[in-house]
Amino acid sequence: MIQDIFRKDLGDFESYSAGKTDYKVRLNANESFTNLDFETRKEIGTVIENSIYNRYPDPDALEVCDLYAKYANVLGINVMAGNGSDECIQIIAHTFLNTGDKVAMQSPDFSMYGLYTKVAGGIPIEFPLGAELELDVDGFISMANSEKVKIVFLSNPNNPTGNIIKREDIIKIIEGCKCIVVIDEAYFEFYGESILDKIDFYDNLIVLRTCSKIGLAAIRLGFMITNNVLMSELKKVKPPYNVNSITQSIACVILKKPEIIYNNVKNILAERVYLWEKLSCINGIKLYKAKANFILVEIPNALEIKEKLLKQSINVRSYTSGKLLNCLRITIGSREENNCLLKNII
Amino acid sequence: MIQDIFRKDLGDFESYSAGKTDYKVRLNANESFTNLDFETRKEIGTVIENSIYNRYPDPDALEVCDLYAKYANVLGINVMAGNGSDECIQIIAHTFLNTGDKVAMQSPDFSMYGLYTKVAGGIPIEFPLGAELELDVDGFISMANSEKVKIVFLSNPNNPTGNIIKREDIIKIIEGCKCIVVIDEAYFEFYGESILDKIDFYDNLIVLRTCSKIGLAAIRLGFMITNNVLMSELKKVKPPYNVNSITQSIACVILKKPEIIYNNVKNILAERVYLWEKLSCINGIKLYKAKANFILVEIPNALEIKEKLLKQSINVRSYTSGKLLNCLRITIGSREENNCLLKNII
Repeated sequence: MIQDIFRKDLGDFESYSAGKTDYKVRLNANESFTNLDFETRKEIGTVIENSIYNRYPDPDALEVCDLYAKYANVLGINVMAGNGSDECIQIIAHTFLNTGDKVAMQSPDFSMYGLYTKVAGGIPIEFPLGAELELDVDGFISMANSEKVKIVFLSNPNNPTGNIIKREDIIKIIEGCKCIVVIDEAYFEFYGESILDKIDFYDNLIVLRTCSKIGLAAIRLGFMITNNVLMSELKKVKPPYNVNSITQSIACVILKKPEIIYNNVKNILAERVYLWEKLSCINGIKLYKAKANFILVEIPNALEIKEKLLKQSINVRSYTSGKLLNCLRITIGSREENNCLLKNII
Repeated sequence: MIQDIFRKDLGDFESYSAGKTDYKVRLNANESFTNLDFETRKEIGTVIENSIYNRYPDPDALEVCDLYAKYANVLGINVMAGNGSDECIQIIAHTFLNTGDKVAMQSPDFSMYGLYTKVAGGIPIEFPLGAELELDVDGFISMANSEKVKIVFLSNPNNPTGNIIKREDIIKIIEGCKCIVVIDEAYFEFYGESILDKIDFYDNLIVLRTCSKIGLAAIRLGFMITNNVLMSELKKVKPPYNVNSITQSIACVILKKPEIIYNNVKNILAERVYLWEKLSCINGIKLYKAKANFILVEIPNALEIKEKLLKQSINVRSYTSGKLLNCLRITIGSREENNCLLKNII
């Protein structure tokens, strides 16, 4: 039987299923709620029209990395591009993990840390957050060291809680953990604080960024930013030509006009204020700190409400187990989408 | 020291370096020599202009897989898209390999089989080709079984030799090897024979295809085609949203008009005949069978000739060790490029 040679340790793995995506109001995937404006899309169209399709991409995506470096106020040589944060996480896992190596992460946090750890043969060690979904920083550090983990993954702000780890605590973790510390700043733009300025100060820090939350989920572009020594290791595992030419071209158009990103973020932040105020008026609902482009709410009968919303073609993120069983994660939508949600959630 | 926690088994890994790409005549990367025509690029531009940038791609790239299935005469459910063949090879390695598992391949063959095997913690077992770069099929099967390999990777036609393994020998390998057999048909279009019709007949067969050689290297799109049982395993490891929306849209435009591909292949095949005839007139040169979009030639002082060509801004692929030390792999170029090569190679 061919099954006899399958990996035993992936036996209980489930295929990722993204489910139906054709809901009218999509507040489930932490996407930006507006498409690029017509002028910008027109400009991209012209660039793409003139692309050279028959040649491989720049394997190192140098122009994109340089432009992103400028945007993030770091040096280009410290930036590596990936096919979304997903590929960045995979590259990190495969660069540093041998079979049986442990990886520390919060629970809950972005589910892909655990998944790619397992694919790489590693063992995810989940550290449960507290009652208010806050991180016990000292407890986390001492767990990571006693388990002798090779990597720590932390999203900051945290997805799905929306909570943040303060700068001094991030530094405490980087200094305290005897391993690679990956701070995933996928939601940086909605929070404003970063640890990027420390990449050359510590030998064990990698920062992740992405274009997916700021209006470019379609093109799959993420970045790893780190010091030269870790960068050299990551380069051993990075597939050549991993970011296609078209994604590179589109990102260059946008990164040359970062005001497109700033405006988009400003609009999302304004709607976050609006949605927060309105949601907080609902009886029996509890809102967690919202430092990203979504709000995590605790609400009785969360799964029933999710079903009710789906019937109105409104999709939000629900959870089927653990601390988040009574929670819904609601992406900030447009005013119209937010009102549609507010009308139907009660 | 942070180096203490690096993977010891990647210690001697070299970062992939693609080198300079701005040569006038690029015959080193097995790319197609013509860009898409203006009309098609115009059509792509319009589609891209109307793209939805703020939403994630279809995670399963269903339309592309269905269109490719039609092109390849298989069913859509048997097709999975990847970010180039590179990602397909990685997904296969990570799906089936635990640390220490062995993988059989020819030497020489596509270098990424060995690299991704090592990243996945596997051990590449290289089976040397014969004096005429032919495969000893029985020897290969008996090696694969005695080494108890989990996967066999074979490109057919072979890159870099250009040689092929006959259909009955491919079948002998699939039937004889007690493991997953991956037949990489990256160069199928230039050969015309495929083993795709057997994917449902064998429980251990995976076929790889790519759009990179037929004019779309820029978009990074490869495919894995296999039976339902292996497909379910591969889906456990495939990253969600691995193929971006723009690549999906562009591929759909092209796959709806496969005559674009057929014409491109026809032109490349005509130039292959031309280049072959001219090269074979050169004294002291030996040509290997050329069933792909390149010709492997054996020539005294190959590395000197490579340097001489580089000075004329002509790049071909050379080799620094092993059987291919005296060989150059020359991608089929346009008539002008081929003449430029011919003028300078002697």
